[in-house]
Amino acid sequence: MNAEIIAIGSELLTPRRQDTNSLFLTAQLNQLGVEVSFKTIVGDRRSDLVGAARTALSRADVVIFIGGLGPTEDDLTRECVAETLGRPLQRHARIVEDLRARFAARGWKMAENNERQGDVITGAEVLDNKRGSAPGQFLHIDDEHGNAIIFLLPGPPGELMAMFEEQCQQRLRALLPRQHIATRELKIAMIGESMADKRAAPIYKAHAEVETTILAGTPGEVQLHLRARAGSQEEAQKRVDTLATALEDEFEDTLFSAHGESMEQIVGYYLGMREATLAVAESCTGGMLSERITTVPGSSRYFLGGAVVYDNTLKSELAGVPPLVIAEHGSVSSQVAKALAEGIRTKCKATLGLGITGVAGPGGGSEEKPVGLVFHALADGNNTEVVERRFFGDRERIRQWATQQALDMVRRKLM
Amino acid sequence: MNAEIIAIGSELLTPRRQDTNSLFLTAQLNQLGVEVSFKTIVGDRRSDLVGAARTALSRADVVIFIGGLGPTEDDLTRECVAETLGRPLQRHARIVEDLRARFAARGWKMAENNERQGDVITGAEVLDNKRGSAPGQFLHIDDEHGNAIIFLLPGPPGELMAMFEEQCQQRLRALLPRQHIATRELKIAMIGESMADKRAAPIYKAHAEVETTILAGTPGEVQLHLRARAGSQEEAQKRVDTLATALEDEFEDTLFSAHGESMEQIVGYYLGMREATLAVAESCTGGMLSERITTVPGSSRYFLGGAVVYDNTLKSELAGVPPLVIAEHGSVSSQVAKALAEGIRTKCKATLGLGITGVAGPGGGSEEKPVGLVFHALADGNNTEVVERRFFGDRERIRQWATQQALDMVRRKLM
Repeated sequence: MNAEIIAIGSELLTPRRQDTNSLFLTAQLNQLGVEVSFKTIVGDRRSDLVGAARTALSRADVVIFIGGLGPTEDDLTRECVAETLGRPLQRHARIVEDLRARFAARGWKMAENNERQGDVITGAEVLDNKRGSAPGQFLHIDDEHGNAIIFLLPGPPGELMAMFEEQCQQRLRALLPRQHIATRELKIAMIGESMADKRAAPIYKAHAEVETTILAGTPGEVQLHLRARAGSQEEAQKRVDTLATALEDEFEDTLFSAHGESMEQIVGYYLGMREATLAVAESCTGGMLSERITTVPGSSRYFLGGAVVYDNTLKSELAGVPPLVIAEHGSVSSQVAKALAEGIRTKCKATLGLGITGVAGPGGGSEEKPVGLVFHALADGNNTEVVERRFFGDRERIRQWATQQALDMVRRKLM
Repeated sequence: MNAEIIAIGSELLTPRRQDTNSLFLTAQLNQLGVEVSFKTIVGDRRSDLVGAARTALSRADVVIFIGGLGPTEDDLTRECVAETLGRPLQRHARIVEDLRARFAARGWKMAENNERQGDVITGAEVLDNKRGSAPGQFLHIDDEHGNAIIFLLPGPPGELMAMFEEQCQQRLRALLPRQHIATRELKIAMIGESMADKRAAPIYKAHAEVETTILAGTPGEVQLHLRARAGSQEEAQKRVDTLATALEDEFEDTLFSAHGESMEQIVGYYLGMREATLAVAESCTGGMLSERITTVPGSSRYFLGGAVVYDNTLKSELAGVPPLVIAEHGSVSSQVAKALAEGIRTKCKATLGLGITGVAGPGGGSEEKPVGLVFHALADGNNTEVVERRFFGDRERIRQWATQQALDMVRRKLM
């Protein structure tokens, strides 16, 4: 079974907007064993949309239209799919009444053009939209226009996701060949994608029954996606788990996530488990390390906070680095990284202290201390570990690599 | 003139990868006055690719193929476009020799499959790839297969961008009707997209000769994109500038960017101009405010640093908030925001101090202090301004709104 996703809207053909719904739908379809063969993005022009619908119906088993279901003149999806299929639209009084009630409940009078949202393609089932006004539609056709499963879904991601999970999944599953699918996602830290691929390849070969994808995540992270199909859920699960175990053996302690967790989540998990707390003092990463740690809800349980010490006097004032150490070794040095980690740990009374100092670029590099040179330090009160790395890429990328390295040091310390 | 962009590669049909090249190309094409009517994403399957190529040639004047130009068996773009056009491939000895020399220069022997990269569609011009191995191709056809301008471009963004700017732009411009285009990008802070749209609409109407697009940027930012065409560059520029001035009058001091600059850049610009420095103490934003400020290269000239004070004792220890203020008003309060701003300003000896405290969620909210409630304070030594806001959305969005509000306070203070 293959699918085509058609995202509709002229705004999706501008330089700034991108369809993201198709990523969610692709994951959902893959879970059901349906591959996506084509994605098409088309504007709000009748002839373009009819043409795209016709092409999709000729080449895909499942066609999902996203967007263009609203009340305005630009919302053409209902009409164009109806025209392509040669099935007239019928206005459903029940939908129109529901819409009117929705408006009335907010004390508004419904404008007449909203009635268009009650137009349903002959033979289609209506998919209720609990989060918005535009209902979706579902058709299973098998006539001279072909054999296809068709969904019309609203564009706003929250509406689309809820509608797909609650109403489309089960309808689609009922029409698909019976099979069970299991997936796993593993993540590896601080190894390049090509090196990870090279090491994974021979293992993949011995488990050809599992589909695998390798993806570069944020800098310093490589993701391995595993997917197996089988006659029973247990068998499918066993297949991905067996391969996952083989990969865990190969990548050993560089594999930080066995079920798709982020590095921030894993670090938070270990800190929580050990009832340890963390404080950070960061220079070149400028707050990115703290920002990553605090993306995790509930991180206040183990993350105390810390200092962003761009200015040298703040390295002393907020993180307790002796001015002499900066004067002697320069602010980008292993000695300053060490003093940052130890100083912030003491100042914040944390179990662990992290320090980062480096040259994020694009300016500020020298022959001795080039752009991309970063020192990372982790202090636990007895001992302070310092890691020196040279990262490549632009300012953003260097800062991302540095935060990943620092978080990975915490993980290794606690695991 | 309309265009279709076809991005090729099975990895672009997975849940995690997205084509981003088309955004760059859309901007470039729009600058030349070419609209993008369709974007298609297709995998590395011969029949799918030939079908997509045929469809595109039937509906677009300019067709740009991205990717699938490498040396492996999966790289099918050359062959499939040649097949669609009914023009055989010819192997260019010069390209093969260049490739061989490239490999030799690195001390490698070239594998035979690399020779495929020398295959050129009959009648095509070769586009040299200075940054990678796969050359591009350009064709202007006008025969029984139709009338079209065709580009084959490599997938890696750096290679594609350089090739388009250096070799495609001029070829395309030479084939287009003569016209001049001018653009402007304005940005507005802390107003919703629909409200901005409502206020801009009557002004747009009076300047119908300028094309306009409204886009929501990061939370708290709305972008207005203006584009005008005319017989001369001066006339096109005058048209966008006239509309821009009218919009500047309407939006007054909420309009923070007149030429597309980011809020961080504008704040940095004002701080630099006034030789002022900034320090921040952030709680619920957890480092995001510092991180945003330091995305700007050279921000160390005006940004000293600050404290991430997740833990209450750190609010006192690092930012000098009297413990009694926290005990009396709670950590999420205007009093604590004020004390954070004043404390960090003093501690860091900065011209301005910013403080943020709030409830980012999803947990931690109460009836009195719900999720999304954030206090922002800006201290200048004489006076401290406090702004209380209630934001909506998820944790990430609330944190983004809060940083935008804080940066906007600095901008308003200095402008």
